[in-house]
Amino acid sequence: MILTVTLNTALDLTYGVPELVPHASHRVSEMSERPGGKGLNVARVLSALGHRTVVTGFAGGATGAVLRELLADLSPQEPTDPGTGSPDTPHAPEPGTAPSATAPSATAPAPAPAPVTDALVTVAGNTRRTIAVVDRATGDTTQLNEPGPLVTADEWAALLGRYEELLAGADAVALCGSLPPGIHVGAYAELVRSARTAGVPVLLDTSGEPLRRGIAARPDLIKPNADELAQLTGSREPMRATRDARRRGAHGVIASLGPDGMLAVTPDGIWQAAPPARVPGNPTGAGDSAVAGLLSGLVEGLSWPDRLRRAVALSTATVLSPTAGDFDRAAYEELLPRVGIEEHAPAAR
Amino acid sequence: MILTVTLNTALDLTYGVPELVPHASHRVSEMSERPGGKGLNVARVLSALGHRTVVTGFAGGATGAVLRELLADLSPQEPTDPGTGSPDTPHAPEPGTAPSATAPSATAPAPAPAPVTDALVTVAGNTRRTIAVVDRATGDTTQLNEPGPLVTADEWAALLGRYEELLAGADAVALCGSLPPGIHVGAYAELVRSARTAGVPVLLDTSGEPLRRGIAARPDLIKPNADELAQLTGSREPMRATRDARRRGAHGVIASLGPDGMLAVTPDGIWQAAPPARVPGNPTGAGDSAVAGLLSGLVEGLSWPDRLRRAVALSTATVLSPTAGDFDRAAYEELLPRVGIEEHAPAAR
Repeated sequence: MILTVTLNTALDLTYGVPELVPHASHRVSEMSERPGGKGLNVARVLSALGHRTVVTGFAGGATGAVLRELLADLSPQEPTDPGTGSPDTPHAPEPGTAPSATAPSATAPAPAPAPVTDALVTVAGNTRRTIAVVDRATGDTTQLNEPGPLVTADEWAALLGRYEELLAGADAVALCGSLPPGIHVGAYAELVRSARTAGVPVLLDTSGEPLRRGIAARPDLIKPNADELAQLTGSREPMRATRDARRRGAHGVIASLGPDGMLAVTPDGIWQAAPPARVPGNPTGAGDSAVAGLLSGLVEGLSWPDRLRRAVALSTATVLSPTAGDFDRAAYEELLPRVGIEEHAPAAR
Repeated sequence: MILTVTLNTALDLTYGVPELVPHASHRVSEMSERPGGKGLNVARVLSALGHRTVVTGFAGGATGAVLRELLADLSPQEPTDPGTGSPDTPHAPEPGTAPSATAPSATAPAPAPAPVTDALVTVAGNTRRTIAVVDRATGDTTQLNEPGPLVTADEWAALLGRYEELLAGADAVALCGSLPPGIHVGAYAELVRSARTAGVPVLLDTSGEPLRRGIAARPDLIKPNADELAQLTGSREPMRATRDARRRGAHGVIASLGPDGMLAVTPDGIWQAAPPARVPGNPTGAGDSAVAGLLSGLVEGLSWPDRLRRAVALSTATVLSPTAGDFDRAAYEELLPRVGIEEHAPAAR
């Protein structure tokens, strides 16, 4: 099982309007609602890749209830592969990071979706909404993000208890996104340390001060984009910034370079991975798909080049998808063998 | 009791942002949630004026549940004036349009709030949200309105039944706002005819084709603004357009002229009412406050000039209020005696 943690989950609303004009009134012509927050997006992609996933974090109020209903709808009604365990026993321990016999390889088509289990902690506050207003003419998106509920000390303690229990059955864990009000800035550092103590590989995907503090707790992986790296290290030169991020404590740093692919600086080597071509589309969720690719590759025991191929193909197929945050499976399968991998000479390490 | 009908209720969200920039991402710094749709706004003002009000229309889904919770919070926990009846017997018949002994006069300060009773019909669809994005720097508002739930024929039949029951106890009824998907364009005409048959004075406040059809059913009052009048009659000349609207079937037409006040063309005479000065502020909800002023004045048996004074003072005090849709009570009381009324010579009728 792969665990994802989303401390600031969101009910993601998408509004289609002909054109967003400030200070005018708009009738929303199309709308959709889905469970959001980075860790929930990662779980959705992991499920599509056939990986059983458990999501934790916080949800509360009327929007939290809607989010949980939509999350329940994500899971197949019947487990599609009994070999990966039934959805009602998500906490059963599984062997460390050993490759799963039933999980997909880097090159085979992905299997039917696996369950996503809701292990969110209920809070008194209201889960935030995010609103993406999409100009139908241009496809451009204007984003409005509520701040999220104020989480109390007792609710944070409940999350820590739930997290410890879930780590016992996890092959890997992803810690994702922003912190809601009330959560201390060292929260991710605390969660990284628990995962390290439990021997569960941990990927941290956040930004700003929570990232800076979290890195110092020595996560296995971080996946910053160019802006997050620059904010952390002060450098916009990818190799310099990525190596600097590693020196700050992250064992492996996968820098996402947008349409140019990814740069991986790891204890095992340095690789650059690039899609066969730049593609047009909406980059929303591409980073979350990359996290799903890296984490699924890790628990399957894939080599670094195969993990990077999968991450780049998934994020490129997400940009190509007409629905923000979903990936285009046919594009993914077509792209996977065509991702270019370049290994840097050992001297460059 | 005054009845308001809101077929397309809404959960009104207000988001404060430093500045709305198309195609950028915004963190919402302040937010508020309240029950909305024109008839609910009218009820809120009637309640503040001490008039017991019953609201009907449609509500459904998770947003409908939140709307109803917020609506319940509007009502005082204990009836503040036993003379106006207890909130659990809102359907008790009351005498026609006789002035209520306990209701406020046009010039006395308004009493404590009266209850607002929820008689909404539950639908399977989700009540819409509206989002007002307020630029904190300028106060300018960008509006995003979801279309509303698809209402079925059975749900419409249930509303008609509920409405007939409620009319039996109503001193007046306001029919307010847009139609949700699935409701036929002659819906308001049908509701106007039922009110006329029941002998209950009916005010229709809508626009476009539903207004055109509704007027033909001969409502007692309509309250169009300049745009709605122009759309209906093709004329932007207030006197001509207002008289034309009357000829189409409305017994009385109160044209709202924005900061210039109101023009009333009625069977009893023609009046123009204007606030003492133009005021700065947010006009959201000013029209709903005017409806509340007109309707409360009607059930209290006030003269036309006193009804118009109240409507103009309430809508001006709504523009002045820092919270969109609320009215500033001190400003209302100060403005009331200062509204200018000019009666047009009988020849002008």
